[in-house]
Amino acid sequence: MFKVSLLTSAHLEVLLSLRIDTSEPSVDGLNLAHGAQRNFRKAEDLVCTFFNITCVPQTNPSPVWTWSCQSDRCEKQLVVEGETAQALDACKLLCGEYRVLWPKPTGLVQLGTSIAIISQHAITAELSRSGRELSPKVAELFRGATKLFRDNVVDLGKGVGPIRSVGRSLLIEATITDTETASFKSNTDESYRLEISETTNGRINSSIVAATFFGFRHALETLLQLTIYNDVTQELQILDKALITDSPVFPHRGILLDTARNFISVESIKRTLNGMAASKLNTFHWHITDSHSFPFEVESYPQLTQYGAYTPSKVFTPADIRTVVEYARVRGVRVVPEFDAPAHVGEGWQWAGPNVTVCVKAEPWTSYCVEPPCGQLNPTNGTVYEILGEIYKEMFKLFDSDIFHMGGDEVNFNCWNSTEEIVTWLSNKGLGRQEEDFLELWDEFQTKALNKVEEANGGASLPIVLWTSGLTGKGHVEKYLDKERYIIQIWTTGSDELIGELVNKGYRIIVSNYDALYFDCGFGAWVGEGNNWCSPYIGWQKVYMNSPYDIVTNLGVNLTSDVRAQILGSEATLWTEQVDDSSVDGRLWPRSSAMAERLWSNPAESWREAEYRMLHHRERLVQRGVQPESLEPLWCLQNHGYCYL
Amino acid sequence: MFKVSLLTSAHLEVLLSLRIDTSEPSVDGLNLAHGAQRNFRKAEDLVCTFFNITCVPQTNPSPVWTWSCQSDRCEKQLVVEGETAQALDACKLLCGEYRVLWPKPTGLVQLGTSIAIISQHAITAELSRSGRELSPKVAELFRGATKLFRDNVVDLGKGVGPIRSVGRSLLIEATITDTETASFKSNTDESYRLEISETTNGRINSSIVAATFFGFRHALETLLQLTIYNDVTQELQILDKALITDSPVFPHRGILLDTARNFISVESIKRTLNGMAASKLNTFHWHITDSHSFPFEVESYPQLTQYGAYTPSKVFTPADIRTVVEYARVRGVRVVPEFDAPAHVGEGWQWAGPNVTVCVKAEPWTSYCVEPPCGQLNPTNGTVYEILGEIYKEMFKLFDSDIFHMGGDEVNFNCWNSTEEIVTWLSNKGLGRQEEDFLELWDEFQTKALNKVEEANGGASLPIVLWTSGLTGKGHVEKYLDKERYIIQIWTTGSDELIGELVNKGYRIIVSNYDALYFDCGFGAWVGEGNNWCSPYIGWQKVYMNSPYDIVTNLGVNLTSDVRAQILGSEATLWTEQVDDSSVDGRLWPRSSAMAERLWSNPAESWREAEYRMLHHRERLVQRGVQPESLEPLWCLQNHGYCYL
Repeated sequence: MFKVSLLTSAHLEVLLSLRIDTSEPSVDGLNLAHGAQRNFRKAEDLVCTFFNITCVPQTNPSPVWTWSCQSDRCEKQLVVEGETAQALDACKLLCGEYRVLWPKPTGLVQLGTSIAIISQHAITAELSRSGRELSPKVAELFRGATKLFRDNVVDLGKGVGPIRSVGRSLLIEATITDTETASFKSNTDESYRLEISETTNGRINSSIVAATFFGFRHALETLLQLTIYNDVTQELQILDKALITDSPVFPHRGILLDTARNFISVESIKRTLNGMAASKLNTFHWHITDSHSFPFEVESYPQLTQYGAYTPSKVFTPADIRTVVEYARVRGVRVVPEFDAPAHVGEGWQWAGPNVTVCVKAEPWTSYCVEPPCGQLNPTNGTVYEILGEIYKEMFKLFDSDIFHMGGDEVNFNCWNSTEEIVTWLSNKGLGRQEEDFLELWDEFQTKALNKVEEANGGASLPIVLWTSGLTGKGHVEKYLDKERYIIQIWTTGSDELIGELVNKGYRIIVSNYDALYFDCGFGAWVGEGNNWCSPYIGWQKVYMNSPYDIVTNLGVNLTSDVRAQILGSEATLWTEQVDDSSVDGRLWPRSSAMAERLWSNPAESWREAEYRMLHHRERLVQRGVQPESLEPLWCLQNHGYCYL
Repeated sequence: MFKVSLLTSAHLEVLLSLRIDTSEPSVDGLNLAHGAQRNFRKAEDLVCTFFNITCVPQTNPSPVWTWSCQSDRCEKQLVVEGETAQALDACKLLCGEYRVLWPKPTGLVQLGTSIAIISQHAITAELSRSGRELSPKVAELFRGATKLFRDNVVDLGKGVGPIRSVGRSLLIEATITDTETASFKSNTDESYRLEISETTNGRINSSIVAATFFGFRHALETLLQLTIYNDVTQELQILDKALITDSPVFPHRGILLDTARNFISVESIKRTLNGMAASKLNTFHWHITDSHSFPFEVESYPQLTQYGAYTPSKVFTPADIRTVVEYARVRGVRVVPEFDAPAHVGEGWQWAGPNVTVCVKAEPWTSYCVEPPCGQLNPTNGTVYEILGEIYKEMFKLFDSDIFHMGGDEVNFNCWNSTEEIVTWLSNKGLGRQEEDFLELWDEFQTKALNKVEEANGGASLPIVLWTSGLTGKGHVEKYLDKERYIIQIWTTGSDELIGELVNKGYRIIVSNYDALYFDCGFGAWVGEGNNWCSPYIGWQKVYMNSPYDIVTNLGVNLTSDVRAQILGSEATLWTEQVDDSSVDGRLWPRSSAMAERLWSNPAESWREAEYRMLHHRERLVQRGVQPESLEPLWCLQNHGYCYL
């Protein structure tokens, strides 16, 4: 038995990267899976010593193919005798206006025409001497982000080949103006300036100037995209000259993940955040509960998860949530919690009393909700607000978001109408049982719940996001929702006239039109047969072309600077009726990256101009530990321009 | 530094099962990912000692929900005070005619009504004393399959909770009549008889009688399906009484995997085989090469992979293939290689000379093939047959299949027509340049290539599979293909009259109609935009209902016993233009399992009767290391009968 102190983390890393196949340990000696064998061959001597076995270094035969840049495309050609091959990634780093940057920078882009070799062991980061000292929290983020950068550089070779440990040093010299801001906010300046140059002593210098940590972090992503693992020379290489100024077009660039219809583990959420960081997305909208399950552990009401979690392990503890929030922060992502109410509530509330929730698991479900199981809060029951208040308090304690999502979609009036307590309440108020009467009831709920949100926020108001719903219906939204207070998240189609009305009335909007940004669409039906409701599957091309500005102008709205400011951005949404840990990555990626370029760059060109960079970015996601869908045969990445129609 | 001998495989298993998150090793001490923390809490003391840290055993609070069997459904209910909860899996093991068996047995099914606790440390297997001794190869398979069974039993608790090491012993007593057959063949008897009983001394006895190892192995899968991990009591439990006789309706139950359009690693193939074993599928059809890449390493022609593999690591070495064949064998799966020709050829052949392949990467591709890159063999070039001969020899050396797939689909006559050498050949033979002339040319190729196949097979003939194609076209198939020799794999729609014609003419068929069994359908287009050619996505319900017998009878064919014998079965196909390691599992599973029940049981009932078992089987696939698509919210599995339309 060994003491852990004897086993260094380097050993562990290597051991784990081998992914030893334990399914057939009976085979003589160490039984390494295929991938492990390959990794093994490629691993550092360390492993061989550790296992006390002989490692044969893998030597690939000389490549027969080479790539050269012609008319902004890397053309695959046979190596001419006597010449050396150029690796595809090296060619791409030098070819085309934007090389393999994703999303495209929006400012100055001056990129060099030659490559320098760098050493994985000589990557350092420091603050420029002229700048002020960072606050402890920002300094911690700085250390975390630069460490991540180094790890990601080393990972460029993972699964491909060994990295030769020779090359120049790379210094990241950072200037971060705002030395205090460690929380991403809706108005956070994400701009950065990145300059790569060669010093007289041969060092590669990358100078980053950013207003905030969050801009600095984006610059690191861009720098990483200008760094490659060259699989021919087995070196880490970087563009030796670049000047980029960059900032996003849309401030709100998000992904919604539903962790209630099916449970999604923290590990999967972390992979999602890895993909978001790589694509410069900044908002993780956590739809953490729904009628199906209640995985959010509320310390003052442990019954919510005891009754509502699918299993005791399908729970997000406070520690889990803190982990996610910090993991996201260092990756430039804010985590926005949603507590959806008064509909989309059911499992987890059974202990609270008979009239707190209504219609839970009501049958036939088609009469009381949009999908099983039904369930809504009872706005006339005081306990509802007591519990809601505690849930909100817990959320404000754990999350670090300057906006809050109150859900508010798909309230079913028939559900409320079938509950005696509610009907009596309406009658006592002198109200009828028509749509407008139920809207009054809903308004009552929204007002009371909002008070609880503000109470949880220390008595201060903050922007509230609500889904398009009955309350935001045509002609009456202003009756219920104050435009200074509420941001409306659109989930109807991109051609819905309501969008124009909301913008004209001065509301800020987040666009998640289901015909382009509902990534659960296109699979088999889960009630009944055939295909699911919002089929067909949405290809990345359509996602890429889904411009929030175009949506609004196509509805006849004049795109003034005020209107632009109202259109905050978009979120890709992943509702998880038919998704869990096994498939979450493929649904989100690389389509979320297509949206990311739309939101960051708002390119004038079509997806066709972006296709080759997209294919490359998809491979980048794989390197970052994500399991994205494959868009095309790898052949199309190796043969630029030959896969078309 | 430690010697490997000091580190036992048990240590390694535990270390690896922790999946330590190496992305942030800077955090103080050991940084365990969320999942790792959970596993950690649940791991054996071994780990705690190994790491020299204190482990706190996880104690879940008493469950508030219980399940009880009512009208063949497990109903979720609140635990009544003073009563203990019944775990969902325990309820399911005792509820309904077929419990959670998948596929449904076709013979006798007598299942007990009570459960016994077994110990993971007391599972043994032995041959019945009355039987003859197994050949060394079958004995090895017996040991391998029973070890897999034990491992799979232990894995039932993986990620859920610890297993209490108390319980009865489980003895598997096997009778395998055919002591010699270690290769799965088209006529292999897969039937088995499984009886579970309790001995007077309290042991659980499972007696298995099977004609072959392959039937025995299926019985182990059935036995495994009658074993559960009870997450309330944290015990391994088994049904204490059962009698099942079982055999498949269709002998050919397969999956085609294309590893050329995108590379699919051996690890992914192993996961595929895990899923196949769990679903009693028996044929892995390996579409190993195509025009896009040539990953199949041929020892006598290393140039094929040197020129044709996507990268040096995206290669199947002879050792890799042997690994796959043996991994499959112990799981009851035969590996059938396909070498697709004369079309679907391109990358990898560039070194062989200018006229060996024609139209490779020809532009515009739409004129010369169905998708980029184009490429076909030149039937008039002798080198073609030389190289083919070596490829076939290598395949017969590595694979162990009693049938061989020669591909033969989608030959483009315009490609051949645009090649001077071919046109001259036609002219010299007195042939024109019409369709029938090119069919003659194709026939010439098929005849010569077939000779090379037989040569590789030691001069013996064997059944050859070909795709429906120009050669199998209406009215003339018998002109080119001998029905005694050729099996036709259908890839047209299930309503194509050609199917009826082929059956009526006496051909044996394998049904892979694209409107039900092409699992790549339904995603975004990869050339151009919109959705891919065979959209929409095919839900599991449609796969389940795709009965080969119905297809044939709907075409007016009388289902005589001769006709039944001609319909060998089906294969689900996965073409990988838009699939690689990241998504292969989700495309194949659980839909391949839906097909598996169709082929094994050919149930009279619809998917609706199978739905609940299907949901359970999907979770079983997860336990087997597969990443299947999720079909419905977990809520539907916990609330049987409430998700319907």
